[in-house]
Amino acid sequence: MMNVSALPVSSSDIDAAARVLAPFAVRTPLLSPPVLSERVGARVFLKPEVLQRTGSFKFRGAFNKLSSIPMDARGGGVVAYSSGNHAQGLAAAAQLLGISATVVMPADAPSMKAVNTRSYGAEVVFYDRYREDRVAIAERIAAQRGATVIPSFDDPQVLSGQGTAALEMIAQAADMGARLDVVVIPCSGGGLASGCALALSAESPGTATYTAEPVGIDDMRRSLAAGERVTSDPGTRSICDSLTTRTPGELTFAINRSLLAGGLAVNDDEVLRAMAAAFTDYKLVVEPGGAAALAAVLAGKLDLQGKTVAVIASGGNVEGETFIRALGIH
Amino acid sequence: MMNVSALPVSSSDIDAAARVLAPFAVRTPLLSPPVLSERVGARVFLKPEVLQRTGSFKFRGAFNKLSSIPMDARGGGVVAYSSGNHAQGLAAAAQLLGISATVVMPADAPSMKAVNTRSYGAEVVFYDRYREDRVAIAERIAAQRGATVIPSFDDPQVLSGQGTAALEMIAQAADMGARLDVVVIPCSGGGLASGCALALSAESPGTATYTAEPVGIDDMRRSLAAGERVTSDPGTRSICDSLTTRTPGELTFAINRSLLAGGLAVNDDEVLRAMAAAFTDYKLVVEPGGAAALAAVLAGKLDLQGKTVAVIASGGNVEGETFIRALGIH
Repeated sequence: MMNVSALPVSSSDIDAAARVLAPFAVRTPLLSPPVLSERVGARVFLKPEVLQRTGSFKFRGAFNKLSSIPMDARGGGVVAYSSGNHAQGLAAAAQLLGISATVVMPADAPSMKAVNTRSYGAEVVFYDRYREDRVAIAERIAAQRGATVIPSFDDPQVLSGQGTAALEMIAQAADMGARLDVVVIPCSGGGLASGCALALSAESPGTATYTAEPVGIDDMRRSLAAGERVTSDPGTRSICDSLTTRTPGELTFAINRSLLAGGLAVNDDEVLRAMAAAFTDYKLVVEPGGAAALAAVLAGKLDLQGKTVAVIASGGNVEGETFIRALGIH
Repeated sequence: MMNVSALPVSSSDIDAAARVLAPFAVRTPLLSPPVLSERVGARVFLKPEVLQRTGSFKFRGAFNKLSSIPMDARGGGVVAYSSGNHAQGLAAAAQLLGISATVVMPADAPSMKAVNTRSYGAEVVFYDRYREDRVAIAERIAAQRGATVIPSFDDPQVLSGQGTAALEMIAQAADMGARLDVVVIPCSGGGLASGCALALSAESPGTATYTAEPVGIDDMRRSLAAGERVTSDPGTRSICDSLTTRTPGELTFAINRSLLAGGLAVNDDEVLRAMAAAFTDYKLVVEPGGAAALAAVLAGKLDLQGKTVAVIASGGNVEGETFIRALGIH
């Protein structure tokens, strides 16, 4: 286990991010649907980041990162490559801060993604994902315009922003007289999990924190078990379109290996069932990747009898077609 | 305008209900989705009673009413006629209080309704709605068993329970530094609206409170305008299956005519669009009737520029089929 104090980010960075975000981010509620607790046999809290600006936690990290750019470096704008929640979170954060934003997106991404990103005033640059390299394109734009590239997870300010979700969760649970035994967090590159792990280790050291990933794209789980970063098969598919990063970030893994209790993996049917439960019983719209932690808890991946558990529902940006598929599962 | 002090219920009954409900009801959050406020050009709060126990505000009134039954009169149980949210709210409240509950339901109601009601331990008695009278059946059961009939809206304890939603809303808005200029509330028999009106008139007297009903079943709106109770055409249909009561209650109307600013009416397309907005932009599952107030605000039924507004999303018990219909609207 590496020394956490050697990392370039600490729980005080999460506290600082919380102060930066307070006037702009939605302080999402901490829900405790009685029917969920009864089903699991535990006291289960649910943190619906679906209610965050742009429908996912990604606004937190993007806003915190953009706020850290010195005023005299903001004129060149920011650039990112993403077709998903990071794109929207970044665009909305940039708009609030008056910074111009460019998002590099595959030309064959669903048109809704570009529409949503543009709705926050960002410019969308398309590329051919079979013939072009999105990182090279973003870096070229950054060099030409003097723009700052905004990583989607492997960055101290980005993951510090994501960690504010856990700070809120701890305080909200305490207000309800609860201490969290277990927290489960959807994981792709590990920004949300590592930021939350830093906050939890400082403010709630008794909590065991787990990631939830799609089966076969569970490289964080396997990396934690192996003690080193491993990569998932690029051919593996999952309904969780927001959890497709196939190697843990360097920084996020360094944090997670020190602080997490382990990783969990869920299959498509478990995810769809969790989305259906969120619709039927909790009245929340959760996207597939956002439902991974709830799926892990509902599918019994951990023994939670009598414990106090919190899951993050990390995003709700789901197309009607996919949602309808979830409604059809039994 | 009649004298409110002559009514058999007052704002102190809402305060008492809040104390009764505190350990059992969900204190639903008061949300303020930025995209909703930007769209309406007002500061808009949304109170999602979809997150309440059983998926609607009905639990509040049922629990408060059942708690008012003397211990020595609880042995005979309770009985109600409803195929909707009142049935589930009543069943869940009875289960928590250890009171046996019977619900009289039409034999041709969707099977899901009976399944949900039974899931809270209630007995379901079916009747032929073309040949039998549900009120007579409920009263016969009550007489045979010594059970108490629980009205769905026109009752002091029931509407006092519903009014606790407004008490929470006022306190939650105040915590965010806001005073409510306008509140819009879905309305069927008027229990939620009258209970909330009592709370608002006492705790937030500057607030203008409106009901929202389906076009053609907007008898509360027309009754408020006429100054006397009028009845809607029994043949008028609406997608709002939880807002089909066609005459205001005696008590609820007496309160509403004294305290409400007026009534609004929304059509099916406006309701479906509000449900779609709740899905796409607010990530909440709202049933047609539950979306009536949001629909009225989104459709511009009031001039809200620069005001602070709260709408109640009163329920989220919607079948997948109807929800899919809302997802298809543009």
